[in-house]
Amino acid sequence: MERIDELNYEGLKIIQNTDGFCFGIDSVLLTEFARDIKKQSKIADLGTGTGILGILLSKKVNAKKIIGVEIQEDVADMAKRSIKLNSLENVFEIIQGDLNKIKLENNTFDAVVTNPPYKKLGTGIKNKEEKQKISRYETSASLEDWIKISSKLLKDNGSFYIVYRTDRLTELFENLKKYKLEVKKMRFVYSNINKQSNLVLIKAVKGAGVFLKVDKPLIIYNLDGSYTDEILDIYRKK
Amino acid sequence: MERIDELNYEGLKIIQNTDGFCFGIDSVLLTEFARDIKKQSKIADLGTGTGILGILLSKKVNAKKIIGVEIQEDVADMAKRSIKLNSLENVFEIIQGDLNKIKLENNTFDAVVTNPPYKKLGTGIKNKEEKQKISRYETSASLEDWIKISSKLLKDNGSFYIVYRTDRLTELFENLKKYKLEVKKMRFVYSNINKQSNLVLIKAVKGAGVFLKVDKPLIIYNLDGSYTDEILDIYRKK
Repeated sequence: MERIDELNYEGLKIIQNTDGFCFGIDSVLLTEFARDIKKQSKIADLGTGTGILGILLSKKVNAKKIIGVEIQEDVADMAKRSIKLNSLENVFEIIQGDLNKIKLENNTFDAVVTNPPYKKLGTGIKNKEEKQKISRYETSASLEDWIKISSKLLKDNGSFYIVYRTDRLTELFENLKKYKLEVKKMRFVYSNINKQSNLVLIKAVKGAGVFLKVDKPLIIYNLDGSYTDEILDIYRKK
Repeated sequence: MERIDELNYEGLKIIQNTDGFCFGIDSVLLTEFARDIKKQSKIADLGTGTGILGILLSKKVNAKKIIGVEIQEDVADMAKRSIKLNSLENVFEIIQGDLNKIKLENNTFDAVVTNPPYKKLGTGIKNKEEKQKISRYETSASLEDWIKISSKLLKDNGSFYIVYRTDRLTELFENLKKYKLEVKKMRFVYSNINKQSNLVLIKAVKGAGVFLKVDKPLIIYNLDGSYTDEILDIYRKK
């Protein structure tokens, strides 16, 4: 069932399908993490899904142009309708297709943002719904494809932003190094201060030198189960 | 000037030279992080300095044999005297020499622990004292040498424990991957909950599969400047 949700940011809204894959806090955290993207940038949002990253970034970093790529036809269609709903047609464009096949101009993007599928095919619990499966599993493109294509699209010194599972951090580092994306900033997300980190936010810069900053921990919940002030601030921002 | 300090752990003591390089909290945190080393293990402590890692681990993990390697003659001598002071001669042996030249039997160690120099030669502020310089700078061996030698010394499935600066994390990952040490557990150390992480604790296992756990944040100070309970617990343990 489709529904329209408020994004609590400058009146933005999003269409989601409750039978499919609804956006999560990871996407919202990534748009906050990517706030250092310069104004009037050209941005690619790979595996855009409902369009959550592009919709929030259109306002958060005042983007000039965002190209979202989504393989699933109905999800891409839903993203297009969300774009219309927010009158963002001049900023945010959806291209429906396979990441490995779509034609975008290389070396032209200031930034790439992505919340790719976290799981390798054949691992973990499978979803029954094909729609959820493609959103969560690497059915169409591997993590390496994702990073390789991002690196190609970026200008020299362009920035790559990803939210990903920490348990695959070594693969992430290996592929980022392979495709000349140097990790510059990381932030680990902890459910609370006593929990391990399952998610990490990473900014890597194409062709940059070695020097990395690990930002303060991003804690979602206080120990009493309430949201931390940082999370409340993110969701309250108008 | 030399002095004897209490380690607040099972009556252990250490000789340090206040004109040289005194051990820091990073070494103490590493011995806590390495507590999963099995009892009766054979351990190498590379760049042992005052011997702090080996002295604490001799009791914390009830080691069978620890070999400490230290290039500086007077520091190695001081470590030897600390070993006598703690009656650990049967467990902890110091070999004075260059990491790249010493002869130890490869593929025989259950664990390697190391707190290597953090800085590349030619970077940052130089210390006037040569003793401090060798402890802080990669004068004798590079990070890659350190990791290559550790990997050679370890048995298959042996564990490598390192405390290192987060800003060189990409180099660390690159070299660990190169020498078949798969990162299995990490813990980021934050001075307080609002500060970036400057130090990271890493456990890597020789020849292991890909899967990494990022443990809960290790916070040193509360926001009021007092030590956190975790740090107090470490220093209070008898």
